[in-house]
Amino acid sequence: MRVEIWSDIACPWCYVGKARFERALAAFPQRDQVEVVHRSFELDPGRAKDDVQPVLTMLAKKYGMSEAQARAGEDNLGAQAAAEGLEYRTRDRDHGNTFDMHRLLHLAKEHGRQDELIQRLYRANFAEERSVFNDDERLVEIAVGAGLDEAEVRGVLADPRAYADEVRADEREAAQLGATGVPFFVLDRKYGVSGAQPAEVFERALTQAWGERSPLTLIEDGGADACGPDGCAVPPRQ
Amino acid sequence: MRVEIWSDIACPWCYVGKARFERALAAFPQRDQVEVVHRSFELDPGRAKDDVQPVLTMLAKKYGMSEAQARAGEDNLGAQAAAEGLEYRTRDRDHGNTFDMHRLLHLAKEHGRQDELIQRLYRANFAEERSVFNDDERLVEIAVGAGLDEAEVRGVLADPRAYADEVRADEREAAQLGATGVPFFVLDRKYGVSGAQPAEVFERALTQAWGERSPLTLIEDGGADACGPDGCAVPPRQ
Repeated sequence: MRVEIWSDIACPWCYVGKARFERALAAFPQRDQVEVVHRSFELDPGRAKDDVQPVLTMLAKKYGMSEAQARAGEDNLGAQAAAEGLEYRTRDRDHGNTFDMHRLLHLAKEHGRQDELIQRLYRANFAEERSVFNDDERLVEIAVGAGLDEAEVRGVLADPRAYADEVRADEREAAQLGATGVPFFVLDRKYGVSGAQPAEVFERALTQAWGERSPLTLIEDGGADACGPDGCAVPPRQ
Repeated sequence: MRVEIWSDIACPWCYVGKARFERALAAFPQRDQVEVVHRSFELDPGRAKDDVQPVLTMLAKKYGMSEAQARAGEDNLGAQAAAEGLEYRTRDRDHGNTFDMHRLLHLAKEHGRQDELIQRLYRANFAEERSVFNDDERLVEIAVGAGLDEAEVRGVLADPRAYADEVRADEREAAQLGATGVPFFVLDRKYGVSGAQPAEVFERALTQAWGERSPLTLIEDGGADACGPDGCAVPPRQ
């Protein structure tokens, strides 16, 4: 079974939701047969790379909140994160463009380091003091820490086209699948879970998707020469 | 869309079938949105690693054929391979255990080199003179040629448990999906194609699976605290 998770590094509910999902997955009996893939999504794709703002200022402006309301929202997120054992700085975080991080996540995917990198990016953004935005050296440090090759990371950061199509393709696919927000979890392209739902909801989704894996419909040709001696002979399973 | 291909290096129809599938994929308009994953299958899992036999001898014994019949089968395969532009030695190939090759393919998957490695293994087995069986140095050479790290490859070959569970899990899954032979192609866990069918059959399967991608069923919780300011807000798509 495959679970695809659309998320953004700048999305605190994605950070919390990933931990909730992982708690459900750890308790799922068939967890060894579940493959997790991270897909790109930008909450704020129109923001210029050098347009970095404090989160509280951005929230107040975007949603017309008072700073006190924005602070209360962050405090709530801090409590939700703490309940999952995650560190979360409720003050003085930055908000900015995440396109380069998504491009690096696609590089990481090719090297089997995607989960390691997204976890380190989340931690850096939500728990550490130094901003992850508009700071290539910071991204190099994080990506190398996740096991990527420094020269390759610098190459991707220096070439804005590298993995750009892959990021855009993920974003198009989210829209096609009807995602109305992130985090957005898709199980075997059949079930969706929107938002950082409680672990119990993920448990239910895993169980349901697992139980309803449907038999395949075979597509074939009448009398094609497709198999032969020791071609398609399958020995009895042991 | 995802296509999973169960196959074995020792399976000539898998070698031919992969080329036919790739011809169909190259002509498929949404090919950039198709991800291909190789899954493990052993035609002859009970064979000891050092039990290497000429293919013609194995076929004659396994199917009670005369050597002339076995040779005619190989000649047919050689013609089918040639029609796909593949080299194929119809005489003096070896047959043996492929478990270590499948373990290496799982290592390669983690580094994004799976397709490169399977292609080189097929070529080595079907087109080159030197046997790929019971010869670790040969496998090291092929795997390093596919871009894997030599020390890592040697480490996997030296430890029979490395990626063994992954190979067995693939094989169990093939049985669960109802595979009755290899190659076995699975599209989005919905459609199956068994055998090295003509490229037209793969074209039809790709088109059908693409057209019938079903909308997701959302699983959710009533009033959970799953989103909030800048959590699940999705900007209008551009």
